[in-house]
This record gives sequence, structure tokens and C-alpha cells, in this order.
Amino acid sequence: MKRRELLRGAGLAAVATGLAACGAAPGDGAGPTASTERLQWKMVTSWPTNFPGLGTGAAKLAEMITATSGGRLTVKVYGAGELVPAFEVFDAVGRGTAEMGHSAAYYWKGKSAAAPFFCAVPFGLNAQEMNGWLYQGGGLELWRELYARFGLVPFPAGNTGVQLAGWFRKPVASIADLKGLKMRIPGLGGEVMSRVGATPVNLPGAEIFSSLQTGAIDAAEWVGPYNDLAFGLHRAAKFCYYPGWQEPGPTLECMVNQAAWEKLPQDLKDIVDACCRAVNDSMLAEYTARNQQALDALVREHGVELRQLPDDVLLALRRASDKVLEDVVGEDLFARKVLESMRAFQAQARAWHAVSEEAYYATRG
Amino acid sequence: MKRRELLRGAGLAAVATGLAACGAAPGDGAGPTASTERLQWKMVTSWPTNFPGLGTGAAKLAEMITATSGGRLTVKVYGAGELVPAFEVFDAVGRGTAEMGHSAAYYWKGKSAAAPFFCAVPFGLNAQEMNGWLYQGGGLELWRELYARFGLVPFPAGNTGVQLAGWFRKPVASIADLKGLKMRIPGLGGEVMSRVGATPVNLPGAEIFSSLQTGAIDAAEWVGPYNDLAFGLHRAAKFCYYPGWQEPGPTLECMVNQAAWEKLPQDLKDIVDACCRAVNDSMLAEYTARNQQALDALVREHGVELRQLPDDVLLALRRASDKVLEDVVGEDLFARKVLESMRAFQAQARAWHAVSEEAYYATRG
Repeated sequence: MKRRELLRGAGLAAVATGLAACGAAPGDGAGPTASTERLQWKMVTSWPTNFPGLGTGAAKLAEMITATSGGRLTVKVYGAGELVPAFEVFDAVGRGTAEMGHSAAYYWKGKSAAAPFFCAVPFGLNAQEMNGWLYQGGGLELWRELYARFGLVPFPAGNTGVQLAGWFRKPVASIADLKGLKMRIPGLGGEVMSRVGATPVNLPGAEIFSSLQTGAIDAAEWVGPYNDLAFGLHRAAKFCYYPGWQEPGPTLECMVNQAAWEKLPQDLKDIVDACCRAVNDSMLAEYTARNQQALDALVREHGVELRQLPDDVLLALRRASDKVLEDVVGEDLFARKVLESMRAFQAQARAWHAVSEEAYYATRG
Repeated sequence: MKRRELLRGAGLAAVATGLAACGAAPGDGAGPTASTERLQWKMVTSWPTNFPGLGTGAAKLAEMITATSGGRLTVKVYGAGELVPAFEVFDAVGRGTAEMGHSAAYYWKGKSAAAPFFCAVPFGLNAQEMNGWLYQGGGLELWRELYARFGLVPFPAGNTGVQLAGWFRKPVASIADLKGLKMRIPGLGGEVMSRVGATPVNLPGAEIFSSLQTGAIDAAEWVGPYNDLAFGLHRAAKFCYYPGWQEPGPTLECMVNQAAWEKLPQDLKDIVDACCRAVNDSMLAEYTARNQQALDALVREHGVELRQLPDDVLLALRRASDKVLEDVVGEDLFARKVLESMRAFQAQARAWHAVSEEAYYATRG
């Protein structure tokens, strides 16, 4: 549904309520109690407005909350830079400039060494496993504990699935080819690249294409075929590598200002939770369907060189990743607790997926 | 939340609304309009009440709808046999005995050859791919078109992920060991087993253990470690085989009586849709987390023999599956349309997942 339709429907509902209650004249439906009060929330995001997958996911979340609440909680989405810059979403929602935000936890590693674990960890959990850990393995409780320090309440609200390893202007034949390479790669993946001699830089998605095209950077990882095609990265770098070791199933986040959250009546809290879960499901479905169509276009129409990273490169990256996780956690006891919780879940997930998802892919193929 | 808490919360909200509106005396909140009317729906299911995953998923769906609607739409869950038998859910909701049901579409192959495609197809789509096809690949539109003939509106509402191939009283060393085998296996998987000489039977979950233990059947597939351990299948058959070729990612369904659906105000329709999507996400997370714990217990504590089906057996089953899909579709033009839609999606899904999920599992392992 389009927001306009939602608001019209909400307006009618408000009128109906008013009339039903005691024949009052139709109004905007505003009322003194939680159940009739109409709230207007802002959602700031780290994505261009309606950017495929990430932006449309944030828009869908806002529309679902507005629709399921019958307009009692109307959420307006702001793209990166419209209200606050892409990387100020965390602070903006924390101080209440906006009641809600949609972003990715690994952008906040400067706030806490534990933050990236709630989005993506190199050689870590894939999308299905992230959901298992967050919802059923204690991950979400740890995430809530961390964000509470910053006046925020986090919710899983989307996943891209396994990403691509990135776009390179020159082929990557061995680990030596990564030395001195300037690559846009955020989060822990960037830390790992620095250990093998590359120079990681972080840029908002909207700045990647021009930086790559001008040669300001030599390589970039963004998301996957669906988003990379939309940004035209194949026009700035010919070589596309897989698999996305750095982001095997990044969880996108919806964060809510703690004070705004506590003011919500229980049914609106339940609505926000349900809609975040719904978008967590639908965003991955969108990526699954669109990535494969985009990959088709990149390879068949645009002549992209799709290659797997050499085994020795993947092995070097995996070894570096283990060190990076230890180092970023360091003396941070909370981050250590999160790392151990995730590692314990991953050990079991690998055992089960080896005889289920992984064995099935092999059998079907 | 427990339903009692939800109802109490809803009651209080109703009181608050009443007082706020015009100081009316507290009541049950019932009113003449859609937005204040309080609906009580029955949800019949094909699972034992609160059975792990399937039953708890149905219960969570009912609780979420009741909570997010502030009690305006209260859903009461009935386990298999409480109101109608497990395999009469489809008819019961179609005729309005219950407004809502939670089951699996492949149980209704007798109603339409196309029905099983909306749950699980041997060697077909896994959970992530089913969501991609249903939400973004035209699958859900086809499902709605089919169920409309029966006065039903379907929603994806859960997934178990890749299942186990099943429990066998004797080892399966070759395709010859399947000949004459009496096995509980529903849907298209059962058709495939019959092509390789086995005798498929369908039994509600609750009857599997006793049938297997008494030798009435020689083998049985149910779901996976989490559910199979709960039923104690390891005490009736020692050999556990993987992968679940017959059910690579079965979608569970929520079905709503068409007439009841059309009476819902738009915000309650949006709530039902959002909650089904939320449970579709959370059920798979529950299976992902619990299957691996149960697998641990089965192998380490109960001495289960966990084995992969021999390659020649899997190959024979895959060949038989291709024939079965063609045969069940036969002259049914609609079923043919569904098969082709699914096959086209699967061809692309395999190409993308070969360089993403599948390649990542291999790299991480």
C-alpha cells in the first residue's frame, strides 16, 4: 500500500472511532489516551530513499507500522542526509532527533567493539543462523543490553543474505594482489583487509561509484548483485569476486529511542516488534529473488568477470579474521561475552547445517 | 506474552478508550464499528497443541494477532483433534467452522495437484528460496488464486528449513533396501518413494511413534531433530538419514476463511499479514536453533546412527522426483503453470546460491 492510502484509511478509521464513541464531530483522531492518541515518528536511515532492498525495506517497515496501527503510529522515512548523515543515525535516534532509525550495527564499532557482532562477522553466521542466534540463542538480549547504554532499543529488521566479496579494478590472483589495495569495506571486514596489507576505507553507499570510477579507491564491496547493479559498480570495476566472506548474512537494524519506546502503549510496542520481524523476513526474500536476476544481467549483458577468490586468499582472510575478532574484543568483557555467545552458536549451527542446508545444496546440485 | 496477559491488557485498553471517549462505564469494549468491534476467531491446526515449532508457531501467531490488535481480534488455537482432525483443517476453515487454520499445503494434494508446490517439492526450493518465490517471484499470487476456489486466503506462516530424510529400522545401503518398505511420508515425497518400490503412508504426527515402534511401518520422516526427538522416534528406529530431499524447506500455511477475511477492517487485514510474515521468520529461527541442540542430544546421548543417504539412492530419488512432478501435474493446466513458475525461480536461485550461500558454506567449512 502507498502511504497516502494508509493515511486516508487511518483518517476514516479515526472518524469512525469518533462517531462510534459518542457521535463527536470527525477530527484528526487525536485523543488523550494511548489507544486513541496519534503519534508521528521520524525514521532516519543510512540509505538513499527507497534504495533497492535496504531503502525499500525501511520504507516497508514504516508503511507496515503505519498500516497495522491504523495510523495511530505514523512513521515518516528520511533517506541518508535528508535529516542526518548516513553515519549519524545512531546518535540522532539516541538523542531523540528522530524516534526511529534503520541502519547496520557494524557502522557503530566506534561506540562499542561488540556492535559489529549484531550485524556481520567475517566467516560468521549466515542469515538463517543470525536469526537463530538473535531470536533463539540469546543474541538479541545481548544486543538490547548494549544499546540500552545509548538510550536505544534495537530490533533485527532485514538481512541481505551472503554478499559478494567485492568489485576490483584488477584481478586478485593471490594475497599479494591485496597489498596496498585501497578498498571500501566497513566493519570487521575492513579490519581483516588491513591485516593482509590492504587499506580499508568506509564510505556511504552513495559515494562508492564515483570513488571507484575516479580511482580514489581500487576496490569496493557494497552488498550484492541487486544493489551493486543499481549503483553501476560494474561500470567502475570489471572484476567481481565471491563469496562474501566479510558479510555472510548481515542483519539490518531498526533502533528506537528508549524514551519514545517507553511511552508506547503495549499494543503499539507489539506492532513495532511484529513489523520488524516481518521486514526481517521480506527483505531477505527480496534479495534472494532480485540478486539472481541482477547477477544474470551483470554476467550476460554487462560482461562482468565473476570469479571465486583463490583458496589461499580465502584461507589468509580466515586466519586474519580469527585474530581480528580476538583483537577487537581485547579487554572488553562485554564484547568477549558476545563473541563467545556467537561462537558457541556457530559451532552448533555448522554441525546441523552440514547435514541440512549444506548437504542439500550439494545433493541438489 | 501469555494469552491471559494479552486479554487483560486488551481489557484495560478497552476501558481506557471508553473512559477517554465520553466517560462511559467500563465495558468489554464491544462496539458497532470495525475499529472498536471485538472479534473472536478460532484457529484449527494440524499439530498437537504447543508441539515444538509447528504448534508453538501457531500459538505465537495467535498471540501476536491478539496482542497487535489490542484484543480487537482475539485468536484461540485448537490442536489437532480438539475441534477437527488434523487433516480436516482445510475443509473446516473453508466452510467457516473456524475462521483460521494453521497447516501445510501438501496435505491437500487431493484437492488440487498444485497444492503441494506451496509447501514442499522433492529436490525443490529451500526455506530462503521458498520465501523468495512466494513473496517476490509470483508464488503467493498463484497460491491465492488456487485457494480462492475453496473460499480460503493463504499466507506463508512458518518454515522448518531442510528436514531429515527420515528414521529407518534397518540401514539403507542401496535403492534395493527401499523396496517393499512401508514408510510414513506425505505429499510428493510419498509419491517419489512409491516409484522406487516403497509403500508410502500418511499419518498425523501424533501416530508416528507407535506405528514405527510396533512395526506397522518400517520407516518414517517427520520433521527434523527438534521434533523427532520430542516424539522419541529414535526409540523406535535407530538409523537416521539425511538430507531431507523430500522437504528442503516446507512452508507452513495460515489459511483464513474468505468471508471472515472480507469482513475485517483494513488495519486488521494488515495485522494478520504482518504477523504471518513475523511467524514465518521466527519459526525458522526456532528450528535453526533447536535442531542443532536436538541433533547433539540424539547423537551423543541416544547413540543414534546419523548417516547420509547413499549417492545412488539420492540419484534414483531425484530421477523419480522429476517424473513424479510431471505426472502429478499431468493435464492440470493450473498445476503446470505453478510447476513452471517454481522451476524458473529455482533455476535462477541455484545460480545465485551457488556463488553465495552454497559457496560460503564450503568456504567456512
